This record gives sequence, structure tokens and C-alpha cells, in this order.
Amino acid sequence: METHSEASSFDIAMMQRCLELAQQALGQTAPNPLVGCVVVKAGQVIGEGFHPKAGEPHAEVFALRRAGSEAAGATLYVNLEPCSHYGRTPPCSEAVIAAGIRRVVVGMVDPNPQVAGKGIARLREHGIEVVVGVEASACQQLNEAFVFRILHQRPFGILKYAMTLDGKIAASSGHSAWVTGTAARSHVHTLRRACDAVIVGGNTVRQDNPLLTSRTSVTPLRVVLSRSLDLPTEAQLWDTSVAPTLVCTEPEANLPLQAQLKAQGVEIQHFSPLTPAAVMAHLYTRGCLSVLWECGGTLAAAAIADGAVQKVLAFIAPKIIGGVAASPIGELGFAKMTQALQLKRTHWEAIGDDLLLQGYLEE
Amino acid sequence: METHSEASSFDIAMMQRCLELAQQALGQTAPNPLVGCVVVKAGQVIGEGFHPKAGEPHAEVFALRRAGSEAAGATLYVNLEPCSHYGRTPPCSEAVIAAGIRRVVVGMVDPNPQVAGKGIARLREHGIEVVVGVEASACQQLNEAFVFRILHQRPFGILKYAMTLDGKIAASSGHSAWVTGTAARSHVHTLRRACDAVIVGGNTVRQDNPLLTSRTSVTPLRVVLSRSLDLPTEAQLWDTSVAPTLVCTEPEANLPLQAQLKAQGVEIQHFSPLTPAAVMAHLYTRGCLSVLWECGGTLAAAAIADGAVQKVLAFIAPKIIGGVAASPIGELGFAKMTQALQLKRTHWEAIGDDLLLQGYLEE
Repeated sequence: METHSEASSFDIAMMQRCLELAQQALGQTAPNPLVGCVVVKAGQVIGEGFHPKAGEPHAEVFALRRAGSEAAGATLYVNLEPCSHYGRTPPCSEAVIAAGIRRVVVGMVDPNPQVAGKGIARLREHGIEVVVGVEASACQQLNEAFVFRILHQRPFGILKYAMTLDGKIAASSGHSAWVTGTAARSHVHTLRRACDAVIVGGNTVRQDNPLLTSRTSVTPLRVVLSRSLDLPTEAQLWDTSVAPTLVCTEPEANLPLQAQLKAQGVEIQHFSPLTPAAVMAHLYTRGCLSVLWECGGTLAAAAIADGAVQKVLAFIAPKIIGGVAASPIGELGFAKMTQALQLKRTHWEAIGDDLLLQGYLEE
Repeated sequence: METHSEASSFDIAMMQRCLELAQQALGQTAPNPLVGCVVVKAGQVIGEGFHPKAGEPHAEVFALRRAGSEAAGATLYVNLEPCSHYGRTPPCSEAVIAAGIRRVVVGMVDPNPQVAGKGIARLREHGIEVVVGVEASACQQLNEAFVFRILHQRPFGILKYAMTLDGKIAASSGHSAWVTGTAARSHVHTLRRACDAVIVGGNTVRQDNPLLTSRTSVTPLRVVLSRSLDLPTEAQLWDTSVAPTLVCTEPEANLPLQAQLKAQGVEIQHFSPLTPAAVMAHLYTRGCLSVLWECGGTLAAAAIADGAVQKVLAFIAPKIIGGVAASPIGELGFAKMTQALQLKRTHWEAIGDDLLLQGYLEE
């Protein structure tokens, strides 16, 4: 936990409350970040708010509205630097100044190098005391996809798979229901809710016929990557009354199925050639922050090789299935063990009877 | 931690000391158990001992010798029920009685159902207070191989492997040096020291040319299983000045190599047919308590299918190598994920940058 030297334990607690508020909009703010805001006067919270979705006011505006005229002389906490530019909404730094806020505590600066620090500078020009970097790690973590997207102009890719203790995502027959227990599967639903799109390949559609929803009203865009479009005419993903589905394929692939899917409300996008990076570039233009790869080993390897995966989430079930195929990640062309991609900032946790290992691939 | 209701925290501490003493003979007592003993009078330790190896006196004898005549009226702690039969040494229960011990605290009863409780009964007949079951879980754990061997008349099999986070024990080329870091590899040396034999198959000899020692003076019997004996004429395992090597093969396999190996001091044993269970039966007759399978996926699957594996130790390195082959456990014939072998009593721990998952296969 990194904290600024001027921050008190009360400041830390208030910043944690900002993060809690921010998360109420998990999966709903793209392309905007998750932001929560708290206004405090004489040790009492007088206003709270969070950014609910793109096009709606920012967190600071909601919190200042609640605080009303009491905001004069108060301290404002926000996990991301208040904006200083005119976008779909007026700049928050101006609203903070206008409200008469005396002190602002910021979790992290704006990740965009071209605007970073301008909001803070604007506040300081008006004599407002600004403390930066309280709970900075947690703030960075919450908006890691937003930060990555700003810096790299593409969505943050997360590869998730579930394997047995002997490294298989399915039995040799292809059967895979289920590798992990109910707690881990429920965790995946929460993860899907936090992502803006979830991707599978044709093999997964054929083998598993997945639904790919979050089991809540907030569900990501469901994306299928298939060059051949050699897919069944009946599949759970073709039912767009549940959630929208996007099929990414090449122009001439299986035209009858393309026609059928369009008629069912499935969106078709053409790529020549179809690659993970091209699909990520397309999802960037749609405003996606985070994209979850829930595919088999062949597509997972292609996505990694294409730079479309930044974070890996591996669920490991303490069971042994045996067999020879069904690896979570296919050929990457590495002949020596020393060439293996080392995950950074790894973290282990038990989820029910299973283990979840998370880590980051280096850029 | 299971404790008997009559046990005090002092009793628990003394039993933990017994376990500590017992472990000084790790890997050296087969076919006997690991046993430590402490004699205490008026809160002071007046004698300690452990069983160093088969043929030498039991732990109780060493501890009573140290205590001398002071043992009269003292309390004796021992992690395994004192024996009551005449074997290579006189029964310890008689020595305890003769020394005038007033109270005996026992970690666990003798696992052999035909003798279990007889040593304790003998002590009680002589008016000695006996408390049983102090630190029982830790006592059972320390001698799990001994207990298994007594109950099943075969050695306790441990399968150990190291894999990447994508479930591979090597790159597609076969290259595997190294999957895990130095801390995990050092842990494997300690594990080898605690085992009486370590087994690899022909593939491992050909691919990795392993040494299979503990890097200490206590080193297990190195065992190679190979039906064809299609093995290199030069290999680290053929140097028996480092440690003994046993080659298990079929009678007619590669007779020239058999002759060469015999001349180099390698022991050859014939099996018709060669199976993991047959090798385990042979190692039982040699007194092995625990046998470590450090083989590749094909032999590991055969060993599991043959009931030669009771415990699994999987080291998982947070790295991704990709590729299609080199799975830690080969075909077991399971078509459905629901047929997977569930590990029981699992335990996770971080070892350096790697993770070690342990668990038990059901009998």
C-alpha cells in the first residue's frame, strides 16, 4: 500500500470508500474509468458519488451535488485526478473550484501523459491543497484496463482458463464440464461482469456451446472469432435476446450461416485476415476497456503471440484427468524452457477447492 | 492439531520435540519408522533420543540410557507406540517398565492392526499412566509412508512433477531445464533425501540425463524403468560411485547394454512383464518405505493406473511455454471430466516464485 506522506489513516479510509463507490459501476463505464468521490467536512461525509456510465456526470459532480453549499471549505476525495478538459461534461476541476473545496485528495494522476497533472495544477492555481497518491496501488489496480487503453490505444486483454492439476482444460474426448467447482465458476461470472467483451473461438462454440453471460443484467459483448465460420446453426450464443453477440470472421466464410445469424440479430464483422490484434483494434473503436479471452489453447496462443493478452488468470483444480491434448495454451514456437514467458506480479488465492493464480505478461 | 484431553501444552511441546528428533534420521530408517523420544522429570528434559537406522536401538532406548537412574518416576514422550514384540531389539515397553517410568505420552498407536495397542496395554498393566494421541496428525504425517507400507504391504508412492502455468513439463522440443526456480529444485533434493527410492523412465534418461541425488550423503536408490532398455551407453545414472542404480527391465531387452551396465556396478532386475506395481512389490521386499516417481507423463499415468501413487506433489511455475506435448500425466482413459481423480487433503504453499500443491489420491 503506497501512501503519500501527507495522508492520514482517515484519508486512506476515505480513499477506500471512493474505490468502493467506484466499483458500483463495474463493467458499465467504458470507455470511461471507474471513479468514486467523497466530500468530507469536519470529519463527516457530506456527499458521495460515482460515475455510473459514459455520458452521465462524473463522480465529483454527484458528490458535490449531495454536499450542496456545505462543500465550501470541505475536503474532496477522488480515486482519479479530476479532469480539466471540456468533453461530454464540463471539467470537474472547475466544479471543485466553484464549490469552494479547500483540500483535494487524489488516488492517482490521469494516466494520459498529455493531460496528466493538468487538473491538479488547475486546483493548486486556485489555492486548493492537493495530496496525490493515497492508496495509489489499489487505484491503479481498479482502473488497470482504463490506464492500459489510454497508454496503448487498445483494450486490456485478460486470458482466463481453468485447468486440472495435470494441465488439461478438458478430457481427451473434449469433455470439460466442469474443471473447477461452483465457487470458481461464480468468480468467472463476476469477472465477465467487469469486462466489456468476452471472446471465444470456433472450437469452444462447437465443443462447449457456452452462454458467456455474467448471470446478471450487466453482461459483456459476446464475441466469436472464426475464420471458417464452420459453426453449428444452433448455439446458445446465437440467442441475442440474452445478450448481444458479435461474430468476427473473414468476408467469404460460410455465407449461408452469415445470413442466418444476421437474421437472428447477431452482428457480423469482417476482417482480412482475421487476427486477435485486428479484433482488439475493432473492440478499441467500440470503447472496450477490458476484453476477456475465454478460448481454447490454439486461439489463446495466437492472442498471446499477437500481444492481445496482458493478464493471465489460471484456475487450477486439484484433480487429475490424464490424456494428451487440451492444453490451455498452444504452440508459441519456444524451443527452450528459458524462452518461457514469465508472469510478473503474481498472486495466488484459494477459491473454494480450486486455486486462482493471476499474473501479468510484460509489454 | 488433534490432542488428547489429558494433554497439556507442555506435553504438546515435548511431542513436537520428539518429531524434531525423529526427523534427524529422515531417509535412513527404512523399513522402520521415524521415532524420537524425550524423557522429562520435574519439567526438565533428562534424556532424548531417536531411532537412527534399522538394526540399531529404538528411540526409547537411547533416551532412557541418557536419563539413566533418573528415569524412575519420569514421563516418557514418544511419537509412536512403544513396541511390545521381540524383533532385532528387545521390546521397548519392557525397557520403559524396567526404567520405572510413571507416565507415557504417545503420539499415535502402532499402525499394524495386529499389534496396535499391545505396547500401550503392557505399560498400563504395570500401572503406568498412558496418554495417546498428542499431536496425532503431525505424527501420522511424519510416518505416513511407514503406516501405508504396514497396512498395504507395498511402498508409499509419491509422484512429483514440475510444470508451467500452462501445464507443460517441457517445451515441445523436450527441453525442460528448468521449469522451476532454485528454491523449488532445492526442495526436491530434500524430498529425495526423505525417500528410499526414486524412479524415472527411459524417456527421462534420454531427454534429461538426470543425476537424481539429494546432493547430501543420504541419497535414495536410483531406479530406471525401461522395457526396451533403449538407453544411452553414457548417462549420469550409470556412475554408481555417486549412488547405487537399479535398472528394471524385461529379460531379453538390449542384452549388450545389460552386460555393460552390470560391469559398471548397475544392478539389473528382470520383470515379465515390467509394470509399476511389480517394481513397487520388488522395492517393498527391499524394505523401501517411500518411493518417489520423478518420471514423465506416460510412466506417471501407468503408475497411477497401477495404484503405485498415493500422493501427488505438483510444482507450478508462473510461466508460459506453450506447445502441444509434454503433459505431466498421460492417458488414463477418462472420457468425462467428472471421472477425474480428485486429490484429497490438498495443501498449497509458495516455494520461491513457484507454487507447490500437494494432495492424496484415494485408495
